[in-house]
Amino acid sequence: MDFDPQSLRFDAQGLIPAIAQDAQSGEVLMMAWMNAEAVARTLETRRVTYWSRSRKSFWVKGETSGHTQELVDFRLDCDRDCLLVLINQVGAACHTNRRSCFYTAVRDDVEVILSEPMA
Amino acid sequence: MDFDPQSLRFDAQGLIPAIAQDAQSGEVLMMAWMNAEAVARTLETRRVTYWSRSRKSFWVKGETSGHTQELVDFRLDCDRDCLLVLINQVGAACHTNRRSCFYTAVRDDVEVILSEPMA
Repeated sequence: MDFDPQSLRFDAQGLIPAIAQDAQSGEVLMMAWMNAEAVARTLETRRVTYWSRSRKSFWVKGETSGHTQELVDFRLDCDRDCLLVLINQVGAACHTNRRSCFYTAVRDDVEVILSEPMA
Repeated sequence: MDFDPQSLRFDAQGLIPAIAQDAQSGEVLMMAWMNAEAVARTLETRRVTYWSRSRKSFWVKGETSGHTQELVDFRLDCDRDCLLVLINQVGAACHTNRRSCFYTAVRDDVEVILSEPMA
């Protein structure tokens, strides 16, 4: 039976969180949101496509920046309410031009910046 | 300046998604939700504590199952609206007794189960 994006569990806004993980290094790069159509487009095009909550539009990752995400594997969790996309990331996943959005740690109660923007 | 959990960006329900990643293997194990108090408790106790949306109560991971999550590093993303906790996971993170909740892949339009429950 073909996979139906509608079989996923979306929130009240029709969205599901999608975690993007570097397929090679395993680094968690970012988290963004998809609706059912973004899921379908991601699977069909193999270019990871989110739904931008601020712009209220589809967001083909890297379309303007060139920092594309090629889908390697598409996973869903046991509750069908969270996605994990394993990807080949070109350049920076973060809008700050860092590889990962998770560049801030809290250690001994203080925020520590773990990486600088890419050159 | 001490880190203030209230400086994070919570959704309309006062929650923030938290991705749990195995600190050793890099495997993404699960995603659940925290409120500000769960963040504070996680940082203070080093035992990862979520907010259960279904039970409307704090959920000290592993309290009943023994499948605890010891905090190794606590990270936040560029928008301060998503968390990444690197952890030492005892046993299974998933309620199905699998190591990870993300055991289902969609490949060639078909759902594929990638792992079986732990013995």
